[in-house]
Amino acid sequence: MLAPLPRTARDGALLAVADALVARAPEIVEANAQDVAKARASGTSESIVDRLTLTTERIEAIASDVRDVVALPDPVGELVRGSTLPNGLELRQIRVPFGVVGIIYEARPNVTVDAAALCLKSGNAVLLRGSSSAYASNTALVGVLRDAVAEAGLPADVVQLVPGESRESVGELMRARGLVDVLIPRGGASLIRTVVEESTVPVIETGVGNCHVYVDADADLDMAVRILINAKASRPSVCNAAETLLVHADTAEEFLPRALKALAEAGVTVHGDEAVQRFSGVCDATIVPATDEDWETEYLSYDIAAAVVPDLDAAVRHIRRWSSGHSEAIITRSQPAARRFTQLVDSTTVLVNASTRFTDGSEFGFGAEIGISTQKLHARGPMGLPELTSTKYVVTGDGHIR
Amino acid sequence: MLAPLPRTARDGALLAVADALVARAPEIVEANAQDVAKARASGTSESIVDRLTLTTERIEAIASDVRDVVALPDPVGELVRGSTLPNGLELRQIRVPFGVVGIIYEARPNVTVDAAALCLKSGNAVLLRGSSSAYASNTALVGVLRDAVAEAGLPADVVQLVPGESRESVGELMRARGLVDVLIPRGGASLIRTVVEESTVPVIETGVGNCHVYVDADADLDMAVRILINAKASRPSVCNAAETLLVHADTAEEFLPRALKALAEAGVTVHGDEAVQRFSGVCDATIVPATDEDWETEYLSYDIAAAVVPDLDAAVRHIRRWSSGHSEAIITRSQPAARRFTQLVDSTTVLVNASTRFTDGSEFGFGAEIGISTQKLHARGPMGLPELTSTKYVVTGDGHIR
Repeated sequence: MLAPLPRTARDGALLAVADALVARAPEIVEANAQDVAKARASGTSESIVDRLTLTTERIEAIASDVRDVVALPDPVGELVRGSTLPNGLELRQIRVPFGVVGIIYEARPNVTVDAAALCLKSGNAVLLRGSSSAYASNTALVGVLRDAVAEAGLPADVVQLVPGESRESVGELMRARGLVDVLIPRGGASLIRTVVEESTVPVIETGVGNCHVYVDADADLDMAVRILINAKASRPSVCNAAETLLVHADTAEEFLPRALKALAEAGVTVHGDEAVQRFSGVCDATIVPATDEDWETEYLSYDIAAAVVPDLDAAVRHIRRWSSGHSEAIITRSQPAARRFTQLVDSTTVLVNASTRFTDGSEFGFGAEIGISTQKLHARGPMGLPELTSTKYVVTGDGHIR
Repeated sequence: MLAPLPRTARDGALLAVADALVARAPEIVEANAQDVAKARASGTSESIVDRLTLTTERIEAIASDVRDVVALPDPVGELVRGSTLPNGLELRQIRVPFGVVGIIYEARPNVTVDAAALCLKSGNAVLLRGSSSAYASNTALVGVLRDAVAEAGLPADVVQLVPGESRESVGELMRARGLVDVLIPRGGASLIRTVVEESTVPVIETGVGNCHVYVDADADLDMAVRILINAKASRPSVCNAAETLLVHADTAEEFLPRALKALAEAGVTVHGDEAVQRFSGVCDATIVPATDEDWETEYLSYDIAAAVVPDLDAAVRHIRRWSSGHSEAIITRSQPAARRFTQLVDSTTVLVNASTRFTDGSEFGFGAEIGISTQKLHARGPMGLPELTSTKYVVTGDGHIR
């Protein structure tokens, strides 16, 4: 009988997981070394090898993250709304776990523990399907998780690694409607597209971020440069990094030379439209001519597309046409412009005078993040623990009939 | 530029729709007569013909429902949550329309107007794909809707009937990912299954209701009979009607003779397990032997499956195995039993001492209902206007970078 586990049981299991990760770090590092050796042998880039690598220190950091999850408020059992109906029926809408959550993800083995911890905390069982390139690491990690969970008195099967390294297991997961309640793909655009298109299990689409920074006519240009460089260059490989700069025509002459200089200093290649190309040569800026492909590309690198737009509405039209709907920022001192931009732009997160890099569960104060939903159904934007739950209604009467 | 329409514009359009429906009732009735004649000619049952039929009175009732929708609170722009982050960033989560909602539905032409009204009220455009058997009626109704909406100053295209009567148009709707934001099928189990399995557009699954009434050892038996008959026989064709009766073994001897008598008087055929069959012949009750098929069938007719269970946990196991997860009721005087049942049963709605017939948007005080979601993602149970919206985050700073 699968009663929702009380918080103490779930938290106890997570604390046992954190302890076990630290205690058994050597065997995890050993398993990880196999994956790393295989990756190196097949010529994988050092940046990907680095993301794959686990060290004792990194495992301790992962364990510490698990302890942070334990401390978060419990979403299970939360009363979402309640009322007494005119006929005296008592109506309560209560948060309940989804049941079984499937996570399909790429290279980084720390996701194995993060995702499992968030699912357990929210009362769900979790089916993990990591990258075959991290299979030895994931097998070791899930072994530790299952042992710890079982020792804490929960069924080990609340955490399961989907067996095998083949692509078939992904297909089986996507067709497990009725067994798996929701599937969350985390990774590159092609993985996410495949899951979204082929899954019969309900999916929460995550992560592709073609984010825009729009510098309005009435912007504080120092602020605009600061935010642009932060949004583009502080961590180009993440989904909330900016990929396109849009500049109001009235401010292009003054802003672009400064922006291009700062981008060049940060090592960013600019893919500019004709108006932007006119500034080629300013302060050693390299400007590659932009094509439509640039407007829709999520570079995830030290590249940015840039265009001059006649006004705010044109910026909004550009965003509506090309954005992946993740995060868009406006830099402006004009209250009407800020209001119009936040009303017209329909993305998970619209920012005023702030970097797109803030679209993040930890930054939003959610304490943890299972991903950033870019779909409109169920959850939109950074997802914390409540987004890993459903609800049910409990209706209490004393013999009520219709 | 598609700014969310202000409430006054949406409400004005809906009032114009209500007026136009009444004013143009004769042409709607005339178009409907074609559908009715075609249905009769092809030997459609009178109960279905009745559901298809529109009269001036029924059109006036539909128009009155539209006016009721106008009076409902506006979900668009609602602040779902908000806070100021430690770094001073102001975070607001705001309700926004989905964008384009697709509704695929069967015979009843009143759904055309109901669904369009709820979508417009919540700021969405709506694509309607009704049954080919109601094509003339739906064409007339949508014509009236579009004219009224346009006269009120909104684009007529916020309401569109998917052209053609072929099944291909359903397929196109299901593959319109990126153009249609969510698809809601309303109708029989096979329609819903097809949409759920084949759509690449996110779907909200609705409606199949294999609902259970469980009579506990400690039930008030008068109440139990009253609720059972209400749940089964007050309107057997709807999804919140009861389809299976489960009786605690300790109360079977006393309860079943009374229940079987009342069911027989209400014209209900009982499909019983062996324990129930022992009561065959009591008070002229007709008891057909039940098979596993009965446990999973949504009869939607004057039939009910019935079984005796050894205890509450066995009732819960039966429900977990066979229920469609719609609505389940327990009749009991025991507080621990009520608590255990509401905790263990994971359906959209769990009722204590109340009829399953209460699972309904109007009964819940939502004012209107686009359907009853039986999935766990996004919405679960009766869906009102807020369930027809998504959210976005608006983040405001003064030059914040990470």
